[in-house]
Amino acid sequence: MSILAVGSVAFDNIKTPSGHADNVLGGAATYFALAASYFTDVRIVAVVGEDFTDKHENVLKKRGVDTRGIEHAKGKTFRWGGQYLDNLNEAKTDFTDLNVFENFQPRIPAQYKDSDFLFLANINPSLQATVRRGLSGVKLTGGDTMNYWIRSTNSELRETLRLVNILMINDGEAKMLAAESNLPRAAQKVLAMGPQALVIKHGEYGATIFFREGAFGLGRHPFRAPALPIEEVKDPTGAGDSFAGGFMGYIASQTEVNREVIKRALFYGGVMGSFAVEQFGTERLQSLTREEIDARFQIFRELTHLE
Amino acid sequence: MSILAVGSVAFDNIKTPSGHADNVLGGAATYFALAASYFTDVRIVAVVGEDFTDKHENVLKKRGVDTRGIEHAKGKTFRWGGQYLDNLNEAKTDFTDLNVFENFQPRIPAQYKDSDFLFLANINPSLQATVRRGLSGVKLTGGDTMNYWIRSTNSELRETLRLVNILMINDGEAKMLAAESNLPRAAQKVLAMGPQALVIKHGEYGATIFFREGAFGLGRHPFRAPALPIEEVKDPTGAGDSFAGGFMGYIASQTEVNREVIKRALFYGGVMGSFAVEQFGTERLQSLTREEIDARFQIFRELTHLE
Repeated sequence: MSILAVGSVAFDNIKTPSGHADNVLGGAATYFALAASYFTDVRIVAVVGEDFTDKHENVLKKRGVDTRGIEHAKGKTFRWGGQYLDNLNEAKTDFTDLNVFENFQPRIPAQYKDSDFLFLANINPSLQATVRRGLSGVKLTGGDTMNYWIRSTNSELRETLRLVNILMINDGEAKMLAAESNLPRAAQKVLAMGPQALVIKHGEYGATIFFREGAFGLGRHPFRAPALPIEEVKDPTGAGDSFAGGFMGYIASQTEVNREVIKRALFYGGVMGSFAVEQFGTERLQSLTREEIDARFQIFRELTHLE
Repeated sequence: MSILAVGSVAFDNIKTPSGHADNVLGGAATYFALAASYFTDVRIVAVVGEDFTDKHENVLKKRGVDTRGIEHAKGKTFRWGGQYLDNLNEAKTDFTDLNVFENFQPRIPAQYKDSDFLFLANINPSLQATVRRGLSGVKLTGGDTMNYWIRSTNSELRETLRLVNILMINDGEAKMLAAESNLPRAAQKVLAMGPQALVIKHGEYGATIFFREGAFGLGRHPFRAPALPIEEVKDPTGAGDSFAGGFMGYIASQTEVNREVIKRALFYGGVMGSFAVEQFGTERLQSLTREEIDARFQIFRELTHLE
């Protein structure tokens, strides 16, 4: 089934202990779309500037991503620069030039109205809500957010959370959103805000999904997928969005959304995140095969599997 | 088979967001011995002062721990005070009164010489080495250490690491010991210092074991046991030593030490750590049943288990 991703496309300048890369294609929607493209049909709604050329669009098209929803506006594409020199888990931002992204008003092409799944990448929660309300046929909505929106647009975010089925955020965001430092208690508070399930991403330690009672099946316990310890983390940028792409892409590829599918999806999320960090930008996500993905899935599974 | 634990017995004053407790029985060897006692025969070598009474010794004896190796010295028992008010993962030390522990010279009673397994809790690495060298019949030695020894007695610690089969330390200690911020690379460097296996404890995210090529069987991948997300962490003190007790206790209870046994042991370590934090001090570890332990093992297993 088809997934629509709405979010940023960007050019990034990235410094890490492994080196640096300038003007690499990035943005949450890009990472998500490429990761999800290995599992299902993906469509994208984003805005780019005049510096976004056919060469860039072809990165997505080559992976079969439907790019008709990319709006070409006058001006420059969103640009971000950051470095991970001290800590691979957290970027220090050098600059954020929103450019054409500053006035992003997502427009959903008519051909996208039948999208089955929706991923609302990290953008203003009011825009997220508008997009969701305009797509009545969507079966399942995944969403992301960040500290900035939790602080500055909290009430709008609360509205959006009622429209999101599975929220995907990291430990720090979950604790901030819930105003609660204990993770399982924070998870319960976030679930009470609307989502049926909450994925909390732990970076190199994997991710945990918490369910509302009865959501997607029975069972009172959370589920955790570890991440493979990776020796060569070249560039952590986009790991979370690649995780989301693998997670939702796998779910969309299945005939039913139940607990077992979601558990496997959590492993596939970790797999796609682990590939993303192996090269700068989206490079590694452009050239994978389903065989490589499934081989790593098997390794991740064995990483915690008891006979 | 029998395990000998050598390390500290202490009285702790602990403050956490859940409350506070003074003069509670603690110390690495105490947590380890209680946790391991649910799996196998445990012996303990430690030093206590005149404030350590029959009441305290009976906590260990009730769990079948052989306490003949506890030396009663003139003076006070080791006392530690700390708080976890801001961060449950790291204690802020209020005071450390070494007392009789300052001149601890572990003496191994003749009846302990046939111990099959040895756990060297976090003490001066020179003492750890002396103990190990005096026990020629030991089949497997587990060890712990901490930042203090890594910094101030590095060459002694390096000597000790050649005598330890399985080292159990946390992320920060592993990175400091290896002078390497990437965890899998740090693990390889630590393994090159001597141990056949390295358990890295991740607190609420569980633990990962890395193996030297060919150690305890075949396989080139590490193994990770997650921890159950716990809503009520009353007191994190002793979680790591309880983990070690569950891990080594389970190994000692098996007829052979192989990869599958070690994997299950890693889960049992997480189980015992998760019980330890549910009450202040060693309270929860005093009153468990093997049924409760195995029920939680099952929950931990299902936490990451794919059909």
